[in-house]
Parts: sequence; C-alpha cells; structure tokens
Amino acid sequence: MSEWLRFSVVFWHTFRGTGLDPFGAPTLSRAWNRPAETVDDAKRRLDAAFEFFTKLGVQFYTFHDRDIAPEGASLAETNANLEAVVEHALELQQRTGVQLLWATCNLFSNPRYMHGAATSPLAEVFAYAGAQVKKGLEVAKKLGALNYVFWGGREGYASLLNTRLREELDHMANFFRMVVAYKKKIGFTGQLLIEPKPKEPTSHQYDYDAMTVIGFLRTYGLQEEFKLNIEPNHTTLAGHCHEHDIAMASAFGCLGSVDANTGSPELGWDTDQFPMSVRDCTAVMRYVLAQGGLAPGGLNFDCKVRRESTSLTDMFAAHIGAMDTFARGLRCAAKMQQDGVLDGLVATRYASYRDSELGRSIADGTATLESLEAHILKHGEPEVPSGQQETFELIFNRYL
Amino acid sequence: MSEWLRFSVVFWHTFRGTGLDPFGAPTLSRAWNRPAETVDDAKRRLDAAFEFFTKLGVQFYTFHDRDIAPEGASLAETNANLEAVVEHALELQQRTGVQLLWATCNLFSNPRYMHGAATSPLAEVFAYAGAQVKKGLEVAKKLGALNYVFWGGREGYASLLNTRLREELDHMANFFRMVVAYKKKIGFTGQLLIEPKPKEPTSHQYDYDAMTVIGFLRTYGLQEEFKLNIEPNHTTLAGHCHEHDIAMASAFGCLGSVDANTGSPELGWDTDQFPMSVRDCTAVMRYVLAQGGLAPGGLNFDCKVRRESTSLTDMFAAHIGAMDTFARGLRCAAKMQQDGVLDGLVATRYASYRDSELGRSIADGTATLESLEAHILKHGEPEVPSGQQETFELIFNRYL
Amino acid sequence: MSEWLRFSVVFWHTFRGTGLDPFGAPTLSRAWNRPAETVDDAKRRLDAAFEFFTKLGVQFYTFHDRDIAPEGASLAETNANLEAVVEHALELQQRTGVQLLWATCNLFSNPRYMHGAATSPLAEVFAYAGAQVKKGLEVAKKLGALNYVFWGGREGYASLLNTRLREELDHMANFFRMVVAYKKKIGFTGQLLIEPKPKEPTSHQYDYDAMTVIGFLRTYGLQEEFKLNIEPNHTTLAGHCHEHDIAMASAFGCLGSVDANTGSPELGWDTDQFPMSVRDCTAVMRYVLAQGGLAPGGLNFDCKVRRESTSLTDMFAAHIGAMDTFARGLRCAAKMQQDGVLDGLVATRYASYRDSELGRSIADGTATLESLEAHILKHGEPEVPSGQQETFELIFNRYL
Amino acid sequence: MSEWLRFSVVFWHTFRGTGLDPFGAPTLSRAWNRPAETVDDAKRRLDAAFEFFTKLGVQFYTFHDRDIAPEGASLAETNANLEAVVEHALELQQRTGVQLLWATCNLFSNPRYMHGAATSPLAEVFAYAGAQVKKGLEVAKKLGALNYVFWGGREGYASLLNTRLREELDHMANFFRMVVAYKKKIGFTGQLLIEPKPKEPTSHQYDYDAMTVIGFLRTYGLQEEFKLNIEPNHTTLAGHCHEHDIAMASAFGCLGSVDANTGSPELGWDTDQFPMSVRDCTAVMRYVLAQGGLAPGGLNFDCKVRRESTSLTDMFAAHIGAMDTFARGLRCAAKMQQDGVLDGLVATRYASYRDSELGRSIADGTATLESLEAHILKHGEPEVPSGQQETFELIFNRYL
Repeated sequence: MSEWLRFSVVFWHTFRGTGLDPFGAPTLSRAWNRPAETVDDAKRRLDAAFEFFTKLGVQFYTFHDRDIAPEGASLAETNANLEAVVEHALELQQRTGVQLLWATCNLFSNPRYMHGAATSPLAEVFAYAGAQVKKGLEVAKKLGALNYVFWGGREGYASLLNTRLREELDHMANFFRMVVAYKKKIGFTGQLLIEPKPKEPTSHQYDYDAMTVIGFLRTYGLQEEFKLNIEPNHTTLAGHCHEHDIAMASAFGCLGSVDANTGSPELGWDTDQFPMSVRDCTAVMRYVLAQGGLAPGGLNFDCKVRRESTSLTDMFAAHIGAMDTFARGLRCAAKMQQDGVLDGLVATRYASYRDSELGRSIADGTATLESLEAHILKHGEPEVPSGQQETFELIFNRYL
Repeated sequence: MSEWLRFSVVFWHTFRGTGLDPFGAPTLSRAWNRPAETVDDAKRRLDAAFEFFTKLGVQFYTFHDRDIAPEGASLAETNANLEAVVEHALELQQRTGVQLLWATCNLFSNPRYMHGAATSPLAEVFAYAGAQVKKGLEVAKKLGALNYVFWGGREGYASLLNTRLREELDHMANFFRMVVAYKKKIGFTGQLLIEPKPKEPTSHQYDYDAMTVIGFLRTYGLQEEFKLNIEPNHTTLAGHCHEHDIAMASAFGCLGSVDANTGSPELGWDTDQFPMSVRDCTAVMRYVLAQGGLAPGGLNFDCKVRRESTSLTDMFAAHIGAMDTFARGLRCAAKMQQDGVLDGLVATRYASYRDSELGRSIADGTATLESLEAHILKHGEPEVPSGQQETFELIFNRYL
Repeated sequence: MSEWLRFSVVFWHTFRGTGLDPFGAPTLSRAWNRPAETVDDAKRRLDAAFEFFTKLGVQFYTFHDRDIAPEGASLAETNANLEAVVEHALELQQRTGVQLLWATCNLFSNPRYMHGAATSPLAEVFAYAGAQVKKGLEVAKKLGALNYVFWGGREGYASLLNTRLREELDHMANFFRMVVAYKKKIGFTGQLLIEPKPKEPTSHQYDYDAMTVIGFLRTYGLQEEFKLNIEPNHTTLAGHCHEHDIAMASAFGCLGSVDANTGSPELGWDTDQFPMSVRDCTAVMRYVLAQGGLAPGGLNFDCKVRRESTSLTDMFAAHIGAMDTFARGLRCAAKMQQDGVLDGLVATRYASYRDSELGRSIADGTATLESLEAHILKHGEPEVPSGQQETFELIFNRYL
Repeated sequence: MSEWLRFSVVFWHTFRGTGLDPFGAPTLSRAWNRPAETVDDAKRRLDAAFEFFTKLGVQFYTFHDRDIAPEGASLAETNANLEAVVEHALELQQRTGVQLLWATCNLFSNPRYMHGAATSPLAEVFAYAGAQVKKGLEVAKKLGALNYVFWGGREGYASLLNTRLREELDHMANFFRMVVAYKKKIGFTGQLLIEPKPKEPTSHQYDYDAMTVIGFLRTYGLQEEFKLNIEPNHTTLAGHCHEHDIAMASAFGCLGSVDANTGSPELGWDTDQFPMSVRDCTAVMRYVLAQGGLAPGGLNFDCKVRRESTSLTDMFAAHIGAMDTFARGLRCAAKMQQDGVLDGLVATRYASYRDSELGRSIADGTATLESLEAHILKHGEPEVPSGQQETFELIFNRYL
C-alpha cells in the first residue's frame, strides 16, 4: 500500500502552527517553538520533526523556506541561515531515509509581498521574489526534492480598482519562465507544480482552480514544464465538489501531487482539516489509481489540528486518523477497479463514440455539421437512456 | 450615448417567460402566449415583440432558435417552421431597423439534451446538436446577426461518477471546430461568442468562468475564432465580484458582448434580475469605455421581471430602470476617464515597470533569477507603499 | 430496525415529478401522469403509488392536498375532487396497511400565493389559505395522519422594498392560532409540524432554520402546539452542517420528523437528492436514537430522482440505496451508543458542571458575577484541556 | 445631521490592528503600538486615539476591555491595569466631549476561551468570563457608556461531535441573567446589546442572526433586557441581504445600535470593510429614520483599513469616505420619507387588512378557519395584483 499512499507531513502547520487565528492568541504550546529564535533553535525543531516523521512512519515531508530557518537582517544573512539549516536537514534525511516530497518558497507572509510577489506592482518586490526562489531551487536540488511547488497566496487582487490584471499575469508568466530557465541551468530535476486556490487571503487569486491554471499555462506556453498540486479544501472553496480538481487535472495529464486535506462545506474559508471521510478519500484514490499513482508526487497532509486540539496526542491522532482513512479509501478504490462494475457502466454510456461510424467521425473530428444533419434527417430523434446516477451512487456505496 | 449603450432585448424571458418556477405555476398571462401554438401564433408574437422594441427605443434583440418558432414532429418540420418565422422576422427588422445582436441555439431544454449536447455521451445527440447549429448559423446569416452565442447549459456533469471529463471536452472542441468550418463555408461573418456559467442546471458547467473558457480555447487552438459573452449574474455565481469576468475577458482582448443583468448575492441560483445598481453599471462601463466599446456586441438585457411582477407595465418599468441605470453608469465612467484621477493613481502604482531598468527587464522577459538576486543583494529590502484601497473607493464614489 | 427506521415515500416527487427544471422540459414519462386529468386518473395514480409503497415495503407515505387530486373551477369543486380521492386513499391504506405519516397543503404553487399565503399582503389570499388548510386538517383526520406539516414556501419576501416584515409575521402567527383552534375543535390528534427552509423560491423565508422557528413559536406563544420537520438539504442551504438542525431541534425537544434527503454542498439550491452518505445518516440516527425515536414522525424521503434518471428502475434503486444507507447509519449509531465511548468523552468534557460546587451553582443559576469573581480571585487561571476534535472524528470513523 | 449620524470609531481595529492575517505578518506600523507594553504605553495610545477622534470630529468611540489596557499576571493585576487606564479615559472624555458609545469584554482572544466563555464546557472558564464582565460593567458605568455589547465570538461549536448544545445554551442564558442582576445592582443604566454573527471563528455561533437571538431571548425570558447590535457584514455571512437584520431587529423593536461596515459578497469571511455603498447606506438609514433614530445607539465603524492600506492617511480617508457615504444615505432616505412615494405604495399593498372586514378580522385574530372558508366559498378566487419589484427599485434609484 505504501507505493500508492505516499504520505507526507507538512512542516508549517505541524511544526510552526501556533493556533493563532484572527480572533485569538496562540493556543498550541510546543517545546520546539521559541519567540526569538536562532539557527540552533531551528535545527532542534527539525530534530523534533524528524522524530515525529519516524514515529509516525511517513516517508516524506514538505516545507517552505521560511518555515525551517529564521530570516536575517538581509537576504544574504537569511540565505546563510537557510543553508545552515538545510545542511542539517540533509543529514536528518540521510539518517532516517525520509525524503523531501517538495519544497516551496513563502512569498506571502512577509509584508513586502502584501500586494503580491511575481504580480506585485513594484518591480523591486518581483525581484526579491525571484531572488528568493533562486535560493529555493538550489535548496530543493541539494535536498533531492522530488517536486517544487508554487502557491501564489498573494498573486491576485484585493480590489479591481487599483489593479492591472493583464500586466500582473504577464509578469507572473515571465516569472515562471525565469524559474524554468534557472531550474534547467542548475540541473534540478524535480517536477514543478502550481497549486490552485480561488481566494483568501486575496479577494481573487489568479490560480483560481485547476482549469484556470491549465488555461494560464497554455496561454503562456508553459504547459510542458508544470503540473498541478491539488488541494481539495481549495477546490471546494472554488465552488466545486471535493474531487473535482483532482479529476480535471488528471484528465489533462497534469495531476502531479495532492495536498490531502478537507474543509467544512458550511465555512467560507480554508480550514485545512485532516481528511476523515472514507467516501471522499475513496473518490480521490480512484483517480490516483486510474492514472497509475502520483509519483513523484504524494499525499501531503496540508492540515492543521484544530486550535482547540492542544495536546501532542492530538497531532498523532489526527495524522493516524487521516492515514487510516486514506488506507480505507485505497482499498475501496482498488476493489472497485478490480471488479470493474462502475467502469463498465461508464464505458457503456460512451460506447457510441467507439461502436458507431457516426460516433467515430465525431471523436476523430472528421464529421461536419452537414454530415451530422444528414444523419439526423435520415435517422430521426435519438433515444436517450437514463443516466442512472442513483444506481452509480448505490454501487459506489457498496464498496465503502 | 447610443453608440456606447447598445441595448438589446431578449426574446426568451420577455416574450416566452411565464413566471413558472420549480415551486409554482405560471403567473404571467400574456396575450401573445398560447398553449398549442402554430407558426402564425409565433409570427404574431414576433409582431408584439417588435412593437415593444420600438416603443422602448432599443436597437437590438436576441433569440434562441426555439424561442421564435415551434418545434415540429421532425427536424425537417422544425426547420420549416423556423424558416417561415425567420422570413417574418426579416421583414420586421427591415421595417423597424431593429437589428439582431445575436442568435443562439437552445441545446438544453429538449429532453434529448439532458446529458449534454456537444458533450452528450451519445453520438446521436451530438449529431442532433450539430444539425441544429447548422440551421442556426444559416438563420443568423440570413438575419444579419452581428454575433452568434454558445451557452452550454448542459455541457457539464450532474455527477462525476458517470462522467468522462476529457472525452466530453474533446468532443466539445471538435464541435466548435465544425462550427468554425461551417461558418466560414457559408460566409457568416458574425463574431462567435461563448458565454461562461459555472453551474445550474448542471452541477458543473465546463465553461465555468471567463478564464476557464479562455484556457479551453487556448488548449484546443480555438482562441482566434471565439470571444466571450459575459453575464455578471453568472460571474457572481462563480464566486467572483460583479465585474470580474468583464475585466478578465477585456484584459485578454476577448470581451465580445455583455448580458447586462444582475443577481442577488445572498441567493445561490441564477435570478437574471434587471441591473439597477449605479455602482455596478459604472464599474462595467469603465471596462467597456477603456476598450473602445463593445461593437459588434452590445448590452443585452438577459433579465426577467420577477414572477410577481405580472403587469405589462412592469416589463416597461424594468427595462427603463435598467437603461437609466446604465446611462448613469456611462456618464460616471466617462467622467472618471476624462478626469483621469483613478487611472493616474493606477499608473503610478505600476510605474517601476516602465521607469526603472530593473522593471523593464522584468516586463520584457530579459531578467533572470540571477539578475534579480544580484539586484536585491545590492539594493536590499524594497519599500512598499500603501495600496490605498479606501482612497480609490472614496474617489470612485465621488463620481456616482 | 423498522421501529427506528420509519421510512416514508413522498407522493409529489415520486408520483408527480416530471423532470421539469428552469432550463428544460419534462424528461420523466410515467404512465400514471396525464396532461388533462380527472378524478379517476388521480385514483389510478394512487393505485400505482400504493403498489410502489408495497413493493418497496415502506410503512408510510406523505402528500400535499394538490398532489393527489385535481383542482376544480372553484374551491367547492376542488374540495369535492379531493374528497373523492381521499375516500380511495382510505381504502388503499386499509387494504395495504400503509399509513399517512403526514399530510400538508400546497400553499405555494398556485399563482394566488405568489406573494405568500398566510403572509400575503392581501387578506383574500390569507382567507383562501385558511379555507384550504381547514379542508387539509379534515382530510388528515379522516386518513389518520400521524402529523400535519407546514412548509411556508412563499412565506417570506422577494424584496424588502415592498414588504412589511412585522405585519406579515403577525399574520402568520394568527394563522397558526386559527389552525390550532380548528384542530382541537375537530379532534385531530396528529402532531403539527413546521418545516424550516432559508430561501428558495423566496429571497428570504421566515422559517429560516430550526432556531428561527423555535424563536418564532416562543415569540408568539405557540411552542406547545408545534414541533419541527427537519430537512437536511434545507439545513445546509441555511449555512449549517448536515445534521445541525436535527441536533438543535432535538436539543429543544421539538424534533418531530425528518425529511431524509441531502444536497450537494457546491450547489446553492435545493436538489432533494436521495441520502447516500453513511456518515451523514449515522450522524442523524445518533440524535434519533438519543431521543428515543421519531414516532409519531418518521424518515420521509423528500427526494427526487435526477431528471436524467428516467427509468422506473431508477425509482427503486434510489429508494433502496437510501434505505440501505440509513440502515447502515442506524447500526453504526446503535453500536456507538452501546459502546458509549463517544458519549463518555463528552460527559467528561462537561463534568465540572456536575462535579464541582462552582459548576452546580452555574447550572442551577444560583451563581452571581460576584461569586464567580471571588472564585477566580481565589483560584486563579483555569487549566483548559484539549477539545480533541480529531480524536472524536477518528473514533466516529471506526464505527462506519 | 449629527443627531441621526451618531458616528463612532472602534478602538480595536483602528488602534490595535496590525494587518496580521492568517497568511501574513503585521503590515501596519503605528507609533502607538509597542510589543511589550506598559500601562503608560496604553495611556499614550489612548491619547493618540482621542486626537484622532477629535480631528475626525466624531462624537463616540467603543472598546473591548483588553484593547485599552494590558493584561497582568493575575485577574487582580489585570483589573488594576484596567482601572488606571480607565481613569485616563475618563479625563480624555471629559476634556474632549467624546462619549463612550459602548464598552464590551473580549471573551474570545485569550486561549482560556478557546472552547467558549459562557458556553465553555468548563465551569472555571465560565467563572472567569463572569468575573471579567463584572469588571466590564463597572468600567462601563464609570465611563458613562451608553450601551454594553456582547459579541459571543466563541459561543458556539467547532464540532457537534464533542458538544452539548442545550447545556451550553442554558448556561449562556444563566450568564445573561447574572449580568442583568449585577447591572441593576450597581445601577448601570446603559442598554445591553447582543451582536449576532453566524460563524467565524466557530463553525457555528449560537447568536446566528437577528431572529435567532430574538428567539433565544424569548426562549429564556430575557427579551425585556436586551436589544441588538447589528453588523451588516455578519448579516451577509448569515446568508441575508445587507440590511436584512437591521430590518428584522427594527420590526421587533430591538434595533439598538449598528456596526456600520460591509463585506465583499464573494468572500466567505468577515472582512470588516468601510461602508462605501450609497445604496446600502440609504437602505440602512431608511430603517433608522423610520424608528426615530438609534439613540442611545449609534453608527459604529467596526471596520479596518485593508492590510495593504498602510499609511495614516488611509485611516482618515477610510473614515471620511464612510461618513460621506452615510451622509448621502441619510439625505436620500430622508427625501424618500418626506416624499412618501415608496411608503405609499407599500401601504396600498397591505390596505386590505385595514379597509376590509375580512382583513381586520385576520389582523385582530378574530377570524377562524371556518369564517375564512365561508368568505372564499362566497366570494371565490381573489385577484392578485403585481408586486412591482422593479418599479420599487426604479423609484428607489431615483433618490440615490
């Protein structure tokens, strides 16, 4: 099962989360977090993290550059801090066998990025983001990251009144082109991934959902270089069902990795809850199975314990509960695939595009409006069978 | 003002609407609607419509093929009915000078389309849709339609369980290719438009929003042939602000026409209300002005009177109220543009991409991650000015 | 299990549904539906319904007055039609043993109710609604209905601009008082139920959710006479989680019955889908078990097959799938209750209100702000344990 | 105009806001905020605030207890800090004439309140909240607060699984009873207000919206002691239109005060934006005018500048823009009221409850179902006129 369930723990929520929310102070008191921190503090925190990864038995972890090392007074100093901690991370990886599923740069927390990073109206801020990602790619290479993720948390707008949409998007495309060039230059071989989200903290984020990103990549000729990292809590915030973006990305051959979490449908913001729905995890795993797995991507628990779940036990319970749920999801999905009942029903639905001359001419694009009209004038009104949604649901349920 | 405000009345809501809703029977009793209708009934209804257009003083109207003429027992009979009514429409257009802003085919009401038209799992249904659009294009040409619209009301899915996403999208692209070929063959010169909507009646409609459609067109190489018809009530249902898709479509040079309506933000379905917000209409007209107008598109009132607004007077009041609101919107937007205060503030925000070497190297794509890093290492932390959103809002408000 | 799972089939969706939606024509062709219908047609449809109830093995059914019998040219004629059909229904009930879980009046479909029934701005319309409900109560009594439901589909507003909120609510309360008086006068002993819904078809429905209705009943002194009929699809449209209103109504001793259905969280309108989530049905059954069952209420499948599910087989599959899911839900909930693990954890959370003098003084209301302050000044800062949400979820999941 | 526009500045956003959001660090650098703060720092901040109030020309301000003074190591120490700062506030009030519109206690930010305050599962936490409010009432009395507000930010649940709804609500009612008793004991004469919000930070807040709170108060017999403080951004998050809760609270005679702000309809969280919509402010002011004003309540700007609006100028622009907008709203509403056109149309709609015997018998409750039936049997089908929504909107617009 571990080949299909490439679980990964996130460093930010799990080791930097404090329980702070817009209406309340931190609630999570962790031994590894200290207010004024040094590089040594950062290394000790990393030790704690790897202890957790190992006890939990996961193979992968992920981080933002600013999660693992403290910022300094200048970029040079910040980079030096980062290098020191990365050295330590490399040792821990080698000692434990835990791998870096992906690295990413935090281009949204620092006030300089308040108007965006690659889409900032200020060239200097764009430049800072570029400098930061340069280092991020170097770090990713050094640590053997399997992927590299871009979540454009502030790449969007707060208000249309003060925003130039097209100029910002053109800049964002240029940014990605520079990334691709530098990635190739240094020989980093990880897969580049973009993670869609519709909004929050911005009023509108340009990477709204899977199809928006796919469209952006095609518009700017970047489709060969990037795949998608899909987070279902972002998908539902965009107005889709839980597995929609996973299905869409997979359909276009660009499902690279999954941020395995969930939200509460009645809430309008990102809650990053641990995935605890057998039904949802089964739905996700069906697409993962159908495309032959996620590697080099994985199932990254971009989740945080509730701020009221204050004990260390909760950290374990949450991850274990999520892993168990995905394991059940995998089993259910695998049994569905083996039995082939649902897939068979779907194949029957679309059979006319294979079994009839008319259908084949549509599928291969040789039909014309004239040939279609001729067909209907000759054969008359088609018979349309039931879509059988409830039967599909009933059969799906039998596997849960 | 009439050059900028190319108002158009829709035939379906205004002349075929009955006030039926999912919980109630028709409420609107119109002399021109009769249960079992003939071609002559259809012509008389058209007479009533042109009387209304003329009294209201609008220059344009729009229709679906099935709005204006009754379906027959076969496609041939249906087409014959349509031809007869179209002949009458042509006379009315010539007599009154009212033009057809756009025509469209209804590919969603007939039960045959319940699983989709171009995305139906049945090749026969795809064929029927093709035959119907072939006639639709011919009619559009005959009536001198300035545009031709595709709203894919059932092009999406009710449930992912019984759906093949990619196959359906590939078929949809083939459908549009056939449309382009036939359009060129018969020499129809109207602009082809796609109208995005996120859902309803489907759970997910493939043409979710402007960026999704732009992405679809680029993915399938159709971007030269289609522009967008944006309906703000669809935009808000997709989770965006009122003018977002207008701004996006305009930014990518593909804002072709506007379905000038509005929704109620607290409701999760399409209400097609008459636009009565001076603020919203001003916001829309700013983009229309900035791109030099909508022609050959227009402002099409895809709106319906509430089902409780049962008198003929309401039909007039609703259209007049909407036209007045857009006229105020145009004046406010024109004054803003002339004064240039807001545009000037925006230009200042983005000035560094013009005024500095660094910014120009980003904008023209010659910068690299290395050159950006070098800049930051030399110049240090950028200063980031305020975004001044409230000031923008205050200034905007002064023009209303 | 049948004592706890008092399943009921709805007459409207299942025997009057046509698949009509706001964008499409009917798709469901049923032998028992005919356009111009007579009382005999209505009786034959009832025969078909009872055949379905019996084959499915359900004990209960529900209807609106206008579902089962055709309207006539006057109220007198309509009532005569209704009486004739009710006579037939009584025979069928007696023959099959199927009982009427509840009856209700349709006070929303006829155009006269477009502005509301008990909240109409027109006294004549209020009167018509009263006359209709008078007959409805008589019919309910005759058929031994166990409950009588009010869903105020148009009791709300389309626009605040033309609405007097308080006057409408006062009228609605008077209406319910008249109902109670007449119910007692004729000796109808069924339980009166109000069914909350937040909106649709109105922009705002006064019976927004469970707490709103409970508040309304208390405000007007009607709390002894009414309980609630909760529909989860309405609950989620009101912005709550699936089981919220069931929990709330049960907490206030007024959960009378359940319209066992579900929605799609990504859709903003009422979809009335068959309940197919084991998790959700378990959550519902926990509250039902905890309050000792729903009788005289039940689990009424206020659901419709998708309009694309056109075969009769779909009708069976949908109901069977939903019954199976609820049966699984009951088993899971019963096991949880027997084991007592979750209940025990909850009891521990609240133990201080039982085990400490301070807690008891709060619970019984004898504490004062002064006594509370004195306690804190003496004992200092409280220790606050984890809420353990993920652990609760993990344990809950183990029972599914 | 100042009698109707009782503007108030909030201390928390305007003088304690930092621009922190869940994805980013503070952006607002204010001279009056310092990390480790003393009572003297707090006094100096208060000086700055009163300078702002005075320069802006507002008459009122509001605060939470923990906004204005630092917490100490114990409740006793915290209270001493508070007393010292309050003494200073009193001087500033006397010197400037600025009054305290309302005070409130922050019962949600400290980690002890993470599970709720009056609805905490821990009696000790309830006690702490009681002790804090005791002091809060004393402070309010000392400063001559015109009102006292309760916003129950954490009075709700994160998950139903670990929650006892009824027990928590019973405790909350007991809490309010203790408040009323102590208020009377010390002779504080300010109006008590409850502020509804549906969710955030909780998944469900018990004070969901106006009708929920009105229902709660009636259920527990507290309706004579409390009115409501309505915040439109909370109203829209509850699924209503902007002015809905203001209309509802006013209809039930309990609109006490308004938190004059707005949200963005496309965002699912509380944004606390400055009110900049002339239409919305007019709608609000119509209800305020109709009930003869808000005194002793007011229009409290519970708003924050965007975190990107970093300059002090933005603070002024935002408040000035909002005051101007409300001033326009007042003028429009006053003109509407004087002209009486809209009110007249509404009166006509409901005239039958005054002008006909039938209507009067309904309004005064003397009608019965039998009398209503008799009326309909005699007079037949009512005629139902148009609701004229678009005409109402058109007329409303003419005043903007």
